[in-house]
Parts: sequence; C-alpha cells; structure tokens
Amino acid sequence: MGAIQARMEAALARLLPQAHLAPTRLHEAMRYATLEGGKRVRPLLVFGAGEAADASAERLEIAAAAVELIHAYSLVHDDLPCMDDDILRRGKPTVHVEYDEATALLAGDALQSLAFQLLAEHRIADEARTQLELVRILTLAAGSRGMAGGQQIDLEATGRSLTLPELEFMHIHKTGALIRAAACGHELPQNEKSGLDRYAKAVGLAFQVVDDVLDYDASTATLGKTAGKDSRQGKPTYVSAIGIAAARRLAEELRGQAHEALKGFDGRSRRLGELADFIVLRKF
Amino acid sequence: MGAIQARMEAALARLLPQAHLAPTRLHEAMRYATLEGGKRVRPLLVFGAGEAADASAERLEIAAAAVELIHAYSLVHDDLPCMDDDILRRGKPTVHVEYDEATALLAGDALQSLAFQLLAEHRIADEARTQLELVRILTLAAGSRGMAGGQQIDLEATGRSLTLPELEFMHIHKTGALIRAAACGHELPQNEKSGLDRYAKAVGLAFQVVDDVLDYDASTATLGKTAGKDSRQGKPTYVSAIGIAAARRLAEELRGQAHEALKGFDGRSRRLGELADFIVLRKF
Repeated sequence: MGAIQARMEAALARLLPQAHLAPTRLHEAMRYATLEGGKRVRPLLVFGAGEAADASAERLEIAAAAVELIHAYSLVHDDLPCMDDDILRRGKPTVHVEYDEATALLAGDALQSLAFQLLAEHRIADEARTQLELVRILTLAAGSRGMAGGQQIDLEATGRSLTLPELEFMHIHKTGALIRAAACGHELPQNEKSGLDRYAKAVGLAFQVVDDVLDYDASTATLGKTAGKDSRQGKPTYVSAIGIAAARRLAEELRGQAHEALKGFDGRSRRLGELADFIVLRKF
Repeated sequence: MGAIQARMEAALARLLPQAHLAPTRLHEAMRYATLEGGKRVRPLLVFGAGEAADASAERLEIAAAAVELIHAYSLVHDDLPCMDDDILRRGKPTVHVEYDEATALLAGDALQSLAFQLLAEHRIADEARTQLELVRILTLAAGSRGMAGGQQIDLEATGRSLTLPELEFMHIHKTGALIRAAACGHELPQNEKSGLDRYAKAVGLAFQVVDDVLDYDASTATLGKTAGKDSRQGKPTYVSAIGIAAARRLAEELRGQAHEALKGFDGRSRRLGELADFIVLRKF
C-alpha cells in the first residue's frame, strides 16, 4: 500500500496544474488541498480492483487520480464555514483558513473539472466508449444522486437523531457512491463485478463506522482533525445511533462481509483484502 | 432565437433531476438555479454554430444544456457571500437567499457534475472519441485555466484598477472560455473552426463590455440584478477602465469583428450574426 500511496503522490503532483502557472494562488490552493495528505483509500481501491482486472498501472493511476480529485474537492467544500466549518484537515489548516473562502470555493470547483479532464484526455481504456462510461460512472458518483446528494442529506440530518437505516442511506450516498465507483470501473465478468460492488459497499460503510468510532475516542493529535466534532455539532454518527460497542462489532462484521465478497477472485484480491483490514483496523 | 430559448427551457426541465426525487431540496435548488431565467446566450451559440456545422437539434440540445449547466453553477457560486455576495439574480432572490448557503454550494457542485454526465451518457456524436473530446473541451473551459481561473483573477483584481489588456485577460478566462467552448465543439474544416473561434472571442468580450455599460446606466428594475454593483464593489469594469463612451465604441467594434469572422460561412451563419447583434444591442 505504501508503494501505491507514493506512486499516487507523484502522479497527483504531476497531473495538478503547476503552482507557477497563472492564476498561481488558485493552483497553489488546488495543490495544497490534494497533495501530502490523506490515506488515499479511493486510489488504493482503484489499484486493488485493478489487480483483479489485470489493468496496467499507468491507466489505473489516471483513474485513481480522477477519483481522488473528486474526493479532495468535496473535502474543501465540506470544510467551508457554511458547511462543517472546520479549521483542521489532515493535521493542516483547511484550505479556506490557509487561503480564503473564495479561493477555497474556486479550488474545489476547479478540482472537480480537472477530475473529468483527466478521464477525457488520457487514454485509459482500449475503447473510447469505455472511457466515456468511466466519465459517466464518476459523474453519477459525484452528483446529486451520489456524493453531493449525500452531503445534502447530511446537512438536513444535523440536530436530528437518525435510525440505523437512515444513517446507512446517508453514508451510502455521501461516501459510498465514490468508493463504489473507485472499485467498479473495470471490465470484468458480471459475477466478479457484483462481487466487487458488494465488497465496495461493505468497505465504504466500514470506513464510516470506523471514522465515527475513531472520532468518538481518538484525540485531536492522533486524528489530525478536530476530534469529537461530529457529535458536538449534533451530526448523527454510528456511535450515537447504536452505541460504541455495537459500532465496533458492526465494523468487524462489515470487514467479514468484504472478505466474503472477494471469494472467487482467488489470488487476484490480495490488495483488496489487505485494504479491508487496513480500513477497519486503522487507528487514525 | 425565441424558439431555441423555449426549446432549451423544456430540455433543461427534462434533463435536470426532477424535484420530487430525493434529496428534494437539493434538486429544487438545482432547478431554481437553472430554469426560467437567463438569456441562454451559450445555448444560442451552440445552436448558431450547429447551424454552420449542420448538426441535429437533438444533439445540439444536449451539448447546449451541458454548457448552460456549467454557466448556471458558476452563477450560483459567484453569488455566494464569500464571492460577490449578491442577493438578486434574474429578478429573483439568489439561490443561497432562497435556500441556504450550504444548499447553494452543493447545488452548484451537482450542476457541474450533471453537465459532464450529459455529455457522457447521451449519444451526441457519431464517434465516442469525438464525444470524449467534447468532455475535454468543456472541462478545460470550466477549470482553473478557464472560467474558474478567470473568477480567481477577478477576485484578486477587486479594489485594483486594471489596464485594458489586464481586463481583457480576465474576461477571456472568466466568461470567454465557456463562450468559445460553446461555439467550437463542432466538426468543421480548420479554417471554419478558426473563424468560429474569432467570432466567439469577439462576442464573448462584447458581452462583457455591454454588461459593464448596462451595469453603469441601467436601473435595478430593468436589469433584474443589482445594478451599479460592480463599480461600487471596486470591481474593475470596461467603463472604469476606458470610460463610458469608449466602452460603447468598443462594443460596436467587437460586433463588427464578429460579423467579419463569419464571412465565408455564407448562408450558414444567419443565427450567429443575429446573436452578435442581440448581444451588443440588447438593453438588459
């Protein structure tokens, strides 16, 4: 995983507009928002699923960068004062704190454009038709019926208590859609595609459950972002919905489901198996 | 032009997510931001250039909707308090006033995703490769080296006085990139492509010059947005840069350049000629 993370860091640094190009402040903010940070879970998923599909690293790199740029833009906008109003992300000041709100807004907007630009201008599939399908998958995952829609549901849920199914519905959109898109852009037989999708759904939810557990008990120093913030802001979490012990059990159960979904891939799912373990067992 | 505007209104109403679909508030805001408003200059350009390229109305409609959605998203974000902080647009309260800031932010984000989704999921060119090129053109026009970059330049120019070339540089990015993209997504011989590009560059700038002239002398009631706001906010305008009389002359000169660029299209540029006249001679 470390090798893929390093590779992605280099790829993103190369694919983002260089900081000396005008408008420099915008390009600096885009790079600041994306580079040197994050666990790169979505790129790891692209590469993991790519192992199962036997895809080339050069192509996976572009697809992974596109997904990661969508994720990065969503974090920049999510941290803005009118949304979560957060000042710390990945141990650094958030983009609007380091730059200003307007620059953060535009940096997020431009990162979204860049994500689709990458999918359109690099040759990442044999057929242009396939590549167009990748654009379509990513737009759906990012849009109003995917990630952006999930954030809207999140907004409207603040201050209310949600049932477990409602909470799951929110996260399936907010983070799950992009995570599933990261895993399912490959050309594979239908049964393998649906296995990957079940895997991605499980790790997507597991990621969120573990986030809530970590938010509940980790310190700000370890997490690199303001801990305990979600519950203080009245955001519904798995811990508030079902309690800390049940949340831990649920994460473990989802890890089991993820591994279960990988049966049939034999030796081609080593990376995905490791990633599921990493997502659930991580301490930050 | 009225027929195309009506056709686009119906197309956008059909292509936007229906308001009853969850998350309803987000979908309502996306529709509010896009429908019943605007001169639809960019769609008119797509249809105008489409006449020159003999493209089918069904395909033009999708391409025009994609460009208009990018424009609509940019207005929603541009009106936010951290940007221009405007409360009136097209005679109606701006999206963040009618809904709230967070919903406006997400509606803009989701409109951008939807624009690229349209280009990816509808069959609008014979070859998928051509269609991928349309995605690429629109991402470049929208991104950090196009519209979003122009908005950043605009931000940084507030309170400073710009020279005419600096002002032109800003508008070539802020509004010109998208307008040129609207005109040049067609398959045409190279000399016709470059004619269309010269035309689009001229009308793009003309549009802005006329906007500044109207902002200078129109009343709020006629314009449907807060008049005189740019100059009060210390934003550089053509009127502040060269004076009202020279700005009027410049608009007329650009109209001449636009017509000049259409020579060689013979009977295939009627719509584009009318559009250049409309852009410069309009009173709102």
